[in-house]
Amino acid sequence: MNIDKMLREARAEEGDRIEVASKFGNVKGVLMPKTASTSDDVITLKLDNGYNVGIAVKEDTEVRLIEKKHTSSKPAHAKTEASGKPIVAILGTGGTIASFVDYRSGAVHPAVSPEDLAASVPQISELCNIRTKMLFSMLSEDMQPEHWRKIAHEAANELNSGARAVIIPHGTDTLGFTAAALSFMLKNLTGPVILVGAQRSSDRPSSDAEMNLLSAVKVAIESDIGEVVAVMHDSTSDDRCAIHRGCKVRKMHTSRRDAFQTINGEPIGYVETGKISMAGQYRKKADSGQVEVDDKMDDENISMILSYPGLGAEHIKDVVIDGTVLVGTGLGHVSNRILPAIKQVIARGAFVVMASQCVNGRVNMNVYSTGRDLLDLGVVSAQDMTPEAAYVKLMWVLGHTKDRKEVKRLMATNLVGELTE
Amino acid sequence: MNIDKMLREARAEEGDRIEVASKFGNVKGVLMPKTASTSDDVITLKLDNGYNVGIAVKEDTEVRLIEKKHTSSKPAHAKTEASGKPIVAILGTGGTIASFVDYRSGAVHPAVSPEDLAASVPQISELCNIRTKMLFSMLSEDMQPEHWRKIAHEAANELNSGARAVIIPHGTDTLGFTAAALSFMLKNLTGPVILVGAQRSSDRPSSDAEMNLLSAVKVAIESDIGEVVAVMHDSTSDDRCAIHRGCKVRKMHTSRRDAFQTINGEPIGYVETGKISMAGQYRKKADSGQVEVDDKMDDENISMILSYPGLGAEHIKDVVIDGTVLVGTGLGHVSNRILPAIKQVIARGAFVVMASQCVNGRVNMNVYSTGRDLLDLGVVSAQDMTPEAAYVKLMWVLGHTKDRKEVKRLMATNLVGELTE
Repeated sequence: MNIDKMLREARAEEGDRIEVASKFGNVKGVLMPKTASTSDDVITLKLDNGYNVGIAVKEDTEVRLIEKKHTSSKPAHAKTEASGKPIVAILGTGGTIASFVDYRSGAVHPAVSPEDLAASVPQISELCNIRTKMLFSMLSEDMQPEHWRKIAHEAANELNSGARAVIIPHGTDTLGFTAAALSFMLKNLTGPVILVGAQRSSDRPSSDAEMNLLSAVKVAIESDIGEVVAVMHDSTSDDRCAIHRGCKVRKMHTSRRDAFQTINGEPIGYVETGKISMAGQYRKKADSGQVEVDDKMDDENISMILSYPGLGAEHIKDVVIDGTVLVGTGLGHVSNRILPAIKQVIARGAFVVMASQCVNGRVNMNVYSTGRDLLDLGVVSAQDMTPEAAYVKLMWVLGHTKDRKEVKRLMATNLVGELTE
Repeated sequence: MNIDKMLREARAEEGDRIEVASKFGNVKGVLMPKTASTSDDVITLKLDNGYNVGIAVKEDTEVRLIEKKHTSSKPAHAKTEASGKPIVAILGTGGTIASFVDYRSGAVHPAVSPEDLAASVPQISELCNIRTKMLFSMLSEDMQPEHWRKIAHEAANELNSGARAVIIPHGTDTLGFTAAALSFMLKNLTGPVILVGAQRSSDRPSSDAEMNLLSAVKVAIESDIGEVVAVMHDSTSDDRCAIHRGCKVRKMHTSRRDAFQTINGEPIGYVETGKISMAGQYRKKADSGQVEVDDKMDDENISMILSYPGLGAEHIKDVVIDGTVLVGTGLGHVSNRILPAIKQVIARGAFVVMASQCVNGRVNMNVYSTGRDLLDLGVVSAQDMTPEAAYVKLMWVLGHTKDRKEVKRLMATNLVGELTE
């Protein structure tokens, strides 16, 4: 079958609403552009539920045009703010959720602007007025503390100038790090700051981009959350997103759409078939005042070191400068043979925090002799923080004080929901 | 209540079978020794199901002696091997499963001999003849490749001199590393080599030591497995242990008894209420020949490096010698700013393998531009291996060849079930 000819005869073009009929039934949707990865005999439709489906065209397949695409003026990403609808700011950073496929290499690059992103989900403009700004267009593995600062200031600006909430599309790789950093940096939030990502790019039929973005918009306009959260798929079926606390969320699968989990806790809420239900304790948005940014961080000299059988004293001594998060084994251990090196870096002023590579559960250095020896050296427990939250928190705390007692006290204190004391 | 007096009057001593009756009902079990952590008003009984229970003694509590403890000769840990019963070797290494509590500090030390361990579970001697040997008494965080080698040789010796299976009680912290190392080192297994640990020491009522050990014995005497496996609790209820493939198992919780999981796969079987059921593909034990040990490893110069936003070029250049496993973000990424350092260490001959800190899922460096650039530099994907298995495998492979093509080929090849190609 010649699909191009079939579409031409039906006067159907990209963006038009069409119906594809075959002996397997009729499917209605918007005709999507052909990509390099689409087979020659496949028509891709975006269904009303937002998902793309590829339909193999056979001898008996027919195409009917239902409606030509709207060629009216630009949708809601225009800056005009219709009265009555809440204002939601979308600050673009890049990532799969705003990506395009390089059809030459097959690789995915971050590129699409937040305007395009918002426009790709028409329902958004019915729910709110969108203000968009492209902060960066980057892969999240390249995010640095300077980017966290930029995002924090821009988010505060948006909230302080009328936005009900801020949505930050972000690559999933380091979304947990950024979410933790914003959690420590942003004070007196007058609305939710919502990180959202996608595990599969929006050109793929199984993309989670649209549902995650729509759920984020729901949280933006309806919830009374005053925290930094991440809104992501919660199951492989497409019925639910979870609202994760930003300083407790972690990517726990390389590719599944439900990769994100709240570690050592439950999500604070869910968005299910468009309805928000809160499930846990959360901070409510401030009724008054301005959002403040406290972005002081020691962002050059803090490391993370995984514990492994061959971990030697040199690795510790070479890498640890101002502070480190040891991602130890079990309840928070490293080999006893590196204790002298740990003692040495602490003696020269470094701060050493112990997290666990088990990911789940709480560090407890009081149970075994190694843990007790580490405590005696001055190593601080990350308790039930994720290694990522412990790392970001150590940077933030050391940006505020180098006083040993105060650093210890702050690391052991629950500041923004990152640990259960 | 004076418990000592009550017990004296009932002529009940430690090790006797007694009944404790109160208005809450009657409990029968073996009277356990008092420990420093036991309250003065609590009697601890070992129940028939192997679990310890502490009973608070009130005014109305009565104690009755049921049976004095057996004072017969030593149990099955004696070397006498009664005919008809299979021989199982237990090679002690230490860990919580063979630990005692230092009542001065409250800390747990590894100490109890494998004889004591076997004798602590009387059912074992009914099922098999036990040969025991204490290889070391250490906390597993201190295990080094030299210990893996020792265990491998001793296990092979046991199987080659009549043992049906080998059980290795081991600390849980690095059980996954040791299990992976033994998986690569032991060839032509004529019986299962079973690592077993406990998350809670046997003096605690909720200890998993006894059930895990009994389940390991079941696997030892009844299964036809010819692999290195780990047998551990599979749920917080006490009805099931899982049989995990040694090169795919990982500790995923600091303290829960069901902390161990098969990553990117299902357990190869279960032991449920004493019955083994196999659930997946596994290698059957060799019918003939001798077990061989191939323990060549590059065990000095291989590192693991976690990727984090601040990871800098110096960290890579200082730490990487012969090879490293980068535990990257997402599908297998690191910040693009450290690519030059990776290029440099590869140029000077190092091997760089990419695993994922998501733990679950498969590394795929073909999807995003960073991954493709890393592949171009010569970084090798760990595919669906755990970071731990990738690390141990890299040591083992580099112990056999430094030829770049051959190292790449071996790392990408499924050798012992560690990856799905």
